[in-house]
Amino acid sequence: MKPEAPFTIIGTVRSPWKTATGMPIQPTGARGITGHIDIHEEFRPGLVDLAGFSRIILIYQFHQSTGYDLMVIPFLDTRPHGVFATRAPRRPSQIGLSVVRLLGVDESGIAIADIDILDGTPVLDIKPYISEIDSFPGEKTGWLSEPRDMASSRADRRFSDC
Amino acid sequence: MKPEAPFTIIGTVRSPWKTATGMPIQPTGARGITGHIDIHEEFRPGLVDLAGFSRIILIYQFHQSTGYDLMVIPFLDTRPHGVFATRAPRRPSQIGLSVVRLLGVDESGIAIADIDILDGTPVLDIKPYISEIDSFPGEKTGWLSEPRDMASSRADRRFSDC
Repeated sequence: MKPEAPFTIIGTVRSPWKTATGMPIQPTGARGITGHIDIHEEFRPGLVDLAGFSRIILIYQFHQSTGYDLMVIPFLDTRPHGVFATRAPRRPSQIGLSVVRLLGVDESGIAIADIDILDGTPVLDIKPYISEIDSFPGEKTGWLSEPRDMASSRADRRFSDC
Repeated sequence: MKPEAPFTIIGTVRSPWKTATGMPIQPTGARGITGHIDIHEEFRPGLVDLAGFSRIILIYQFHQSTGYDLMVIPFLDTRPHGVFATRAPRRPSQIGLSVVRLLGVDESGIAIADIDILDGTPVLDIKPYISEIDSFPGEKTGWLSEPRDMASSRADRRFSDC
């Protein structure tokens, strides 16, 4: 059984990352990198009061990834893990999630920083980041617990077509 | 322009919350409430090594919400805000996101706690929660900054059909 669920694309990411190769694999490696989310005109009224938040959760489509494997070797390891124990883009639902800094809301969308997302990525949803419900310091992180340099790791072509 | 993006349902939430009315509005109000995610058999191999993480991000479909308004009065306020400045379930892409505690992985799926999700909810993706990239204490939260009792707030029917 593999039913599909339809969702709406509300906008598009504009970022300096034109290909996955060499891109930071997480926002921690993209500190200071700025971009923009162009929000389709009909959805812009939904941005009212978003500017009061300093961080947002972006939910988007990994549009350059096709297919998936249930066991993957992520960028941060040399051993395979179940895809749901990784943040790899090639997954059954190709939904990406990044917590980015909100710089401001303008007439065409929103300006963001710490962006680890490909240029042209379709955005499905924007949610305000609320530390009280989203922030959990010091959680156990399984295979990721060994010291790794997440900030300087870069992507290659293994999970994308570009 | 409102193109749709298809995604795959990998499993179903089993929780004590049979209707939205009276349900906690966030996991902070659901401390200790346990549930299960029944993962469809074909996707279970993707759970390997997930058990090493203490918290996970669930991405699911708000399947009981239909339509949306771009300005909404959320459960935590009496004033309207843009839908993207709230976590209200009735949104252009009806995608829900909850950070829940992972209790364990079993033969049919995963056991979870702190669950604020309706029974029968279709699950689209599971990602490991990684404090280094997901945890940001003390962020500015705009209209939510005034003291509010998020933990004891309960949902009503305004955003769902049950």
